Amino acid sequence: MTASADLAPLVAALPADCVIADPDRMDAYRRDRANDPHAGVPLAVIRATCTEDVQTAVRFAAAHRIPVVPRGAGSGLSGGSSAVDGCLVVSTERMRKITVDPTSRTAVVEPGLFNAEVKAAAAEHGLWYPPDPSSYEFCSIGGNVATNAGGLCCVKYGVTSDYVLGLTVVLADGTAVELGGPRLKDVAGLSLTKLFVGSEGTLGIITRIVLRLIPAQRPRATLVATFASLEDATRTVLDVTRGIRPSMLEFMDRTSINAVEDLTRMGLDRTAEAMLVIQSDEPAAHAAAEIAHIGELCRANHAVEVFAADDPETGEAFTTARRMAIPAVEKKGSLLLEDVGVPVPELGALVRGVAAISAARDVTIAVIAHAGDGNTHPLIVFDPMDADQSARAHLAYAQVMDLAIALGGTITGEHGVGRLKKAWLPDYLGPDALELNRRIKNALDPLGILNPGAVF
Amino acid sequence: MTASADLAPLVAALPADCVIADPDRMDAYRRDRANDPHAGVPLAVIRATCTEDVQTAVRFAAAHRIPVVPRGAGSGLSGGSSAVDGCLVVSTERMRKITVDPTSRTAVVEPGLFNAEVKAAAAEHGLWYPPDPSSYEFCSIGGNVATNAGGLCCVKYGVTSDYVLGLTVVLADGTAVELGGPRLKDVAGLSLTKLFVGSEGTLGIITRIVLRLIPAQRPRATLVATFASLEDATRTVLDVTRGIRPSMLEFMDRTSINAVEDLTRMGLDRTAEAMLVIQSDEPAAHAAAEIAHIGELCRANHAVEVFAADDPETGEAFTTARRMAIPAVEKKGSLLLEDVGVPVPELGALVRGVAAISAARDVTIAVIAHAGDGNTHPLIVFDPMDADQSARAHLAYAQVMDLAIALGGTITGEHGVGRLKKAWLPDYLGPDALELNRRIKNALDPLGILNPGAVF
Repeated sequence: MTASADLAPLVAALPADCVIADPDRMDAYRRDRANDPHAGVPLAVIRATCTEDVQTAVRFAAAHRIPVVPRGAGSGLSGGSSAVDGCLVVSTERMRKITVDPTSRTAVVEPGLFNAEVKAAAAEHGLWYPPDPSSYEFCSIGGNVATNAGGLCCVKYGVTSDYVLGLTVVLADGTAVELGGPRLKDVAGLSLTKLFVGSEGTLGIITRIVLRLIPAQRPRATLVATFASLEDATRTVLDVTRGIRPSMLEFMDRTSINAVEDLTRMGLDRTAEAMLVIQSDEPAAHAAAEIAHIGELCRANHAVEVFAADDPETGEAFTTARRMAIPAVEKKGSLLLEDVGVPVPELGALVRGVAAISAARDVTIAVIAHAGDGNTHPLIVFDPMDADQSARAHLAYAQVMDLAIALGGTITGEHGVGRLKKAWLPDYLGPDALELNRRIKNALDPLGILNPGAVF
Repeated sequence: MTASADLAPLVAALPADCVIADPDRMDAYRRDRANDPHAGVPLAVIRATCTEDVQTAVRFAAAHRIPVVPRGAGSGLSGGSSAVDGCLVVSTERMRKITVDPTSRTAVVEPGLFNAEVKAAAAEHGLWYPPDPSSYEFCSIGGNVATNAGGLCCVKYGVTSDYVLGLTVVLADGTAVELGGPRLKDVAGLSLTKLFVGSEGTLGIITRIVLRLIPAQRPRATLVATFASLEDATRTVLDVTRGIRPSMLEFMDRTSINAVEDLTRMGLDRTAEAMLVIQSDEPAAHAAAEIAHIGELCRANHAVEVFAADDPETGEAFTTARRMAIPAVEKKGSLLLEDVGVPVPELGALVRGVAAISAARDVTIAVIAHAGDGNTHPLIVFDPMDADQSARAHLAYAQVMDLAIALGGTITGEHGVGRLKKAWLPDYLGPDALELNRRIKNALDPLGILNPGAVF
């Protein structure tokens, strides 16, 4: 790697103001929300304005064997956008065009747009882009595609990959390929569009996305239930998923309830072991029946309180409470943010196991979960100044992933492997699937310049 | 290729009755429904009973550099399962286990089960596997996954890929890898599960599938409308897709209407230029409103007759009529079966263009379409004994694909490239995307033994 390559030809080949090489200005581009302490110092940051700019940057990097770290809004939680020493950070933040075609119910989007902006543009045509990471107001659609992001609606509406019909991708040699397009059905050639979704910048840089949209979501009815035991809450989740398809099915444990209550003073029950927030978006009469049925299931599982919020404002307040859990817990200390998932029937075992790890390691672990699809976020809280506690927190972080693997689950449901979780990927995938991953990576990036150190 | 490899060690390594080498018995395994005249003669047919049998066969093939042609139910329409001289045909027809887990709403399925059997097993638990190729009663789920099959429900419910959460795949060296699993969210490593969906046996042989299921479909309300002009019908399709999400939106032209009427005598209007069959599966009151609204759109576009079938039997009769179109047209002569798709706004241009090609080449082309997602099946009818007509039919077949490409469409929406359409793949993909396809193929099958001659 020639980290000291002369940038002048690159600066000359790009529009004015595209290249940042000033260390102070580059600092904001070194880390994502994972706050990777090992983040390196880039050679330069490229703020691309179009596909051609990205191609120019990647061709330069390939010629000089310089690592390329693609970057969306920097909201990633696994260190997928940690800078590498001497790399080019290629930021897509300025690529923000969108066009919506209501007749084919598709949108063509540039990667720098925020998820919320995609939703808003769709809504102008009475349409909806469902995937909704908690960070939807400040995460980019390009980052969503690169990580195959999830969210709260996935239990009914699936994940990012289910909405990606086409991509333009800049490959490791600077070639831009168009894959798929605004067609609901297309089986000509390999499913390369889907391969790039979730590839975390290791196979190419996504510069244009064709999304499938669906008609606007109906108003949602919300139910909130509190439980005196974790088991009652997780058993309720299984009773719901067995027969009903809610549009949201979220879980919070006592630590996260209290953290949110500390922040909001909205009157949450601080003594509850667990709270479920459940929504239905069926047509009004059906939604009411569905919520009533879910309420019965909660009561049959000894819910302490069951509260149906018919008005959208109250429902939205509880959804917001759930979305605020991560920032609320973050106020208690530094976080190691987990993203483990299990088959839904194992949810209870996972939640109980995490509580046991918390006790054994004597560290606070707040658990929130997209319970309906078995995807949990244990938030491990620690004081980075306390070396012993930090060490115990990191042990707990590892144990939670080991536990998920043992329960037939995954080390990451929606955040990505990035740099923080890559040490656990071999255990999760096993040698044969790992080798298959590597073979694809090597075929598409033989020089290994694309996001080195992430995933693999 | 040593087409004369000694089969004895393979026979010895497999369960009794797995290996067929008798030419008469092998004949039934040489072709799929595409009836490829260039189908070769296999060295042997392996009727695998489990993943290990498939591994044994592939290892033998790899050791002797023998081509392997994977085969499901043989219902493919693009020649993806045409035998190659001296190959091993690996049939999964005997791999028929299924388990359904209603709590996680997933099914673990072996590839030999028919699509209809998967649906039936899900229905026992009040669940539904949506994808519904017209051949659903005699196509295998393994073949569906290998081709990323579609169907009539895709306009609302998406394609096979949207329901595949995990796979076991036997690779070109005989290794079996497990990818994904019964988790709605899993982003650990590359999206390899999705890569194998639609790979038409060129990257590996699928031996186990984890499917996502959804709650049972509600009863459907059906509307049938006939039109005196193609334009009126295709304009209606756009008016519907712009604001409504029907669960079925099918198109038949005059030739296909008449072919079905010849067969069924159900009283279809033989003078209509086009017929639309549209369904809603919203809750009853909403379905009625949706169907009424669609009826208004039909009338605004000069529909000759608009007929709402509230009772499921009548609705089912029209769906069956649509599903019978291919066998009905098949009675008129040999078929070249197209599967071109365009972005929905181009549907009218495609249908008109096909009519122009039919006139210019003086061959009958019946057009049926999954109109709501722009996926059409022009059926080119010819007499194989008439050399001149055959030549004109083949010219028309090529022209229809050229037209689709020119309209921003695809050469195959749901049947696959197989051997019949591979000559058009380079034009459709363009050199860069084709090269990317080849790079993946070469990385996973360096000896080129998996389904050689298909797709690439």
